[in-house]
Amino acid sequence: MAGKKWQMIEWTFEGPHTGNPFVDVELWADFYFKHRKVTVRGFYDGNGVYKIRFLPDEEGSWRFETRSSCPELDHIERLFEVAAQAPDQHGLVQVDKETHFAFQDGTPYFPFGTTAYVWNHQSPEMQQKTLASFAAAPFNKVRMCVFPKYYDYNTTEPAIYPFEGQPLHISDGHFDGKDWMVKENGFDFTRFVPDFFQQLDQQIVALGEMGIQVDLILFHPYDHWGFASMGEEADLRYLRYLLARVAAFPNVWFALANEYDLMALVGQKERTAWDELFKCVKEEDPYGHLASIHNFYHPPLHFTDHTHWYDHHKSWVSHVSIQHDTMFFVPGWLKEYRKPIMIDECRYEGNLNHGWGNLTAEAMTSQFWLAICHGGYATHGETYLNEDGSIFWAHGGTLKGASVERIAFLRSLVEENNWQFEPLGSESSHWETAAGIAEDGTVLVYLGADSQASFKIFDILPEEKTYTVNLIDTWNMTTQPLEIVADAATKIALPAKPYLALQFTEIESTY
Amino acid sequence: MAGKKWQMIEWTFEGPHTGNPFVDVELWADFYFKHRKVTVRGFYDGNGVYKIRFLPDEEGSWRFETRSSCPELDHIERLFEVAAQAPDQHGLVQVDKETHFAFQDGTPYFPFGTTAYVWNHQSPEMQQKTLASFAAAPFNKVRMCVFPKYYDYNTTEPAIYPFEGQPLHISDGHFDGKDWMVKENGFDFTRFVPDFFQQLDQQIVALGEMGIQVDLILFHPYDHWGFASMGEEADLRYLRYLLARVAAFPNVWFALANEYDLMALVGQKERTAWDELFKCVKEEDPYGHLASIHNFYHPPLHFTDHTHWYDHHKSWVSHVSIQHDTMFFVPGWLKEYRKPIMIDECRYEGNLNHGWGNLTAEAMTSQFWLAICHGGYATHGETYLNEDGSIFWAHGGTLKGASVERIAFLRSLVEENNWQFEPLGSESSHWETAAGIAEDGTVLVYLGADSQASFKIFDILPEEKTYTVNLIDTWNMTTQPLEIVADAATKIALPAKPYLALQFTEIESTY
Repeated sequence: MAGKKWQMIEWTFEGPHTGNPFVDVELWADFYFKHRKVTVRGFYDGNGVYKIRFLPDEEGSWRFETRSSCPELDHIERLFEVAAQAPDQHGLVQVDKETHFAFQDGTPYFPFGTTAYVWNHQSPEMQQKTLASFAAAPFNKVRMCVFPKYYDYNTTEPAIYPFEGQPLHISDGHFDGKDWMVKENGFDFTRFVPDFFQQLDQQIVALGEMGIQVDLILFHPYDHWGFASMGEEADLRYLRYLLARVAAFPNVWFALANEYDLMALVGQKERTAWDELFKCVKEEDPYGHLASIHNFYHPPLHFTDHTHWYDHHKSWVSHVSIQHDTMFFVPGWLKEYRKPIMIDECRYEGNLNHGWGNLTAEAMTSQFWLAICHGGYATHGETYLNEDGSIFWAHGGTLKGASVERIAFLRSLVEENNWQFEPLGSESSHWETAAGIAEDGTVLVYLGADSQASFKIFDILPEEKTYTVNLIDTWNMTTQPLEIVADAATKIALPAKPYLALQFTEIESTY
Repeated sequence: MAGKKWQMIEWTFEGPHTGNPFVDVELWADFYFKHRKVTVRGFYDGNGVYKIRFLPDEEGSWRFETRSSCPELDHIERLFEVAAQAPDQHGLVQVDKETHFAFQDGTPYFPFGTTAYVWNHQSPEMQQKTLASFAAAPFNKVRMCVFPKYYDYNTTEPAIYPFEGQPLHISDGHFDGKDWMVKENGFDFTRFVPDFFQQLDQQIVALGEMGIQVDLILFHPYDHWGFASMGEEADLRYLRYLLARVAAFPNVWFALANEYDLMALVGQKERTAWDELFKCVKEEDPYGHLASIHNFYHPPLHFTDHTHWYDHHKSWVSHVSIQHDTMFFVPGWLKEYRKPIMIDECRYEGNLNHGWGNLTAEAMTSQFWLAICHGGYATHGETYLNEDGSIFWAHGGTLKGASVERIAFLRSLVEENNWQFEPLGSESSHWETAAGIAEDGTVLVYLGADSQASFKIFDILPEEKTYTVNLIDTWNMTTQPLEIVADAATKIALPAKPYLALQFTEIESTY
C-alpha cells in the first residue's frame, strides 16, 4: 500500500461481525513520520470489514500500528510510502491572512459556494444530474447535510437511513416545524448503516475530484426521524463514527449545524450543547478541517446578537458562518471577529413563497459583489420550484438561475487577480459604496443595485496614490478600461445605471 | 376688515421708522372670541409699516386690541367678522390617530412630500418654473429653507439676504464644510430685510394655494454667511420675527433644523441649544403647527442612536423626522415613539456622486411603498444634475424623474381608500414583506425590489378573515383584481417579478 500526499489512503481488515461491532470494537491507529505521531480512529464498515483511513501531509516513509479492544485488530503494523502530491492536490483549505483562505500548499482559495442540502439523498439519476451540474458550475464549495431533510418541499423519505430501523413518524403535506421534536423513534442509534455512509463517502470523493469543498452539515433541525434529538451520547457516537470515515478526505469542512438556534427553539438540542459537540469534532479530526456553525435568527435591528448567535470567537470556530441578508454589516463583523466572514445564507435566487427563497438573479449577484468588496464571502442557493417538485437548493438537479454565470464572472476576476480584500472603512450604510483593498493596493468598488450615479469622486481611495481604472458591468459581465489616471479627487464619469463596479489598479511610483 | 376661517388676515399700521424698529418696537395683539383670548406678535415690515397677522379658527365675531412699547401702536382695537371657511380650506395639519395626520376639519392628510431646499432663493424665472412643476406634481408637502444654502451645487449667492449687510466670506468651487463655521460676518442680525421675508410670505402663499404644506427649515448647516452660528440671542430674535410673519399661514410646518447634529459637528450650534429654540417656536406659535427636527447621522448598525438623535419623545416634537435609508426600521420606530414617522430623507432619485443622491427611480418608488406599508411616510427628492448646474432638490426647476408618476399612483390609491396603516408585525428584516393594516381591515403588502416569488401564502393576514385581492404592479401602475377569495392560508399565484403589491380587502361577514 502506498499513497500520495494530501490524498486519503485506506486500509481494510477482517474482524468480528457478531454482537454490535459499532460499539463493541474500539480501533485506533497511531501513524508515525519521523518524530511525529498522528492518531486516527478506525471504523466498522459492515460484513466483518474494518477500515482505517489516513490523510498524509508529508512525502516519505510512514508507519502505523493499530490498537484495538479486539485482539484480531490489535498491533497490526504497516510501513508505507507517500509520494509527492498529484498536481491537482493542494491539501486542506485553511484560514489564511486572518480573514481569508488558502490551501495547505499556499494556493489561495476563494470560496464561491452553493447550497444543495440533500442532493445526496435523492435518486441515483438525480444525483448524476447534480454532479453534472456541479461540473459545469462556478461553485467550489457546497453546503450539504449528512442527515436527510424534512421540511417544505422535502417530504419524500430517503431510500436509506443512517441508523438501523425505520421511522415511526411518516407524515405528508405542509410542515411547519411542530413535529420536529421526535420523542419516540424507530431507530437504533448504536447501529450505523454502512451503505448510507459509503454513499456519503462516494459523494464527497466525487465532489473532491471536481475541486469542490464539502461544507458538511452535521446536524440540522428539519427532522421527523429523531436524528436532531438523539441526545448527547448518541450525538457523540455519531460524530466519532462519521469523522473516522470522512476526516481523511481533504475536501471536507464541518458545519456543526444549520440554524443551530432553531434546534433549541423547537426543543431538539439546547444551545449549551454545542461546545461539547465542537470539542468532539476537534478531538476526532487530527487534520484541522475548517469548522463553523450557522444561525437561524438574524437580528434585523442590530448588527449582531450575542444572545442568539453561537460565539464565533471561540477557538474551535475557524470562520464565521452567518445567515443574514444585509451585507453592509460585513466590515463590522470582520472587525469584531478577525476571522473569515462567510455569509452562508443571504437569501437565494428563486421564486418561492418564503422571503429567503425568492431573490431576483440581480439581487443574488449583488450579494456576491457586496460580500467580496466588503471583505467577506457569500454563498449561492437556487430556489426555483420545478414542475417535478424539486428545488436545486435542496435536491440538486439542474441550475437555471441567471446569477450563476455572473458569479462565474466574478470568480474569474477574483482568481485571475488573487483578490483578497480588507474593507475600506469599518462602518458603512446602504448608501455608501462597498469597497475593498487588496494586498497589492487594488481597490474594488461596487456601486450596487440602487445607484445610477453619472459621475463619482472616490475619496475612499488612499491619498497620494494614482490608479488605472476598469469599469465593470457586473450584470452584463463586461470590463472596460477607462482612459484616465485617477486619484482620490478625480471625478469619474459613469454610465447612469446600476450594477457597476470599478477596479482601481495602483500605478507604481517610478522614483 | 373681515376674513374667513383658516385663512390668514392681516392688519397694517403706520409707526416709527427711525432707530431700529425691529428691536425698538414691541407690538402685540390680543385676539378675543367669546371667552377665548389668543395673543400674537406683530412685526415691522419696513418703511414705517407694522403688521399683525392672525389665523382665525372660529366663525363669528372677533376682536383684537394691541399692546405696544410705541404709543402710536398701542391700544388699537378692531372688531371683525370671520365667515365660514372656503371649500378648499381645512385648517392646519395636525397629528391624528397617534401616528397619522388630519386637517383640523377632520379631513385626513396623507403626506407625499418632496424637497426643494432653496427654490425660494433662485431667480424669478426659476421660481415660476418651480411653481409650475409643483402645480403638476403629486407632492403636497415641500421641505424648504428660510436661509440660503452654501454647499456642493449651491455656491451662487442669493439676490437678497435676510439681514442687512453683506457677506464677508465669498468663495467658490467645491465646498466641504470646513468654512461653515463663520466667526466674522458682515451682517447686522438685529436688522431684518423685509423684502427677503415678503418674498418668503408670497412663496408660502403660492404653495398654499396649490394645497401644499411648507415644511419650513428654520436652521441648517450649509452656510458661509454666519446664519447658522448667530448665537442664541440672535437665533431667538430671528425666530420671533419669522414666526410673527409666518405662523398665521395655515400651511406651515416647522422643521427646526436640517441635519441638526451636523451643525454641532462643525461647531455652529451645540446639540443642547435646541430645547430653547423649540420652546421659542412653541411660545411664538399660538396655533400649534407641526414641528420636528431632522438628523444627519443615521447609524448603519443600529436601529436608532439616542446619543446622536434629538429626542423625538419630547412633547414639543409633533412627529419624528428622520434621515435614514432603511425602511424596515419604521415599525420599530413607531413602537418606540408612537408619533407619525416621517422619513424626510431616504436617499433621492438622481445621478450625483453622493450616495444620498443617486438612487434609481425604481428604488425611490420602492422607498415610498415600503414606508407606507410599514406605517410611515417617505419624502421624495430629485437630484439629477442639469446642464445649467441646477438640481431640483436644491433649486427647483423641472421634475424629470420616473418616480414622480409612480408616487402619484400610490398617492391616488392611498387617498381614494383613506389608507392609514399600522404595521403588521413590529419587527421585520429585508426579506420579510412590508405589510400594513388599515382601520377598515384592508391589508396592503409590498413585496419589494428583490423578490420574484411566483406564489405566496400571506400568513401575516389576521386569522378567520377572508379577502378579495388586488394585484398591484407598483412600477407599471396597474391594479388587477384576482379572481380569488383569500385568507391567511391561501397560496396566491404571482407573476415572478419585482415591485408587486397586494391589496387585501376584507369581506364583511354576513352573519
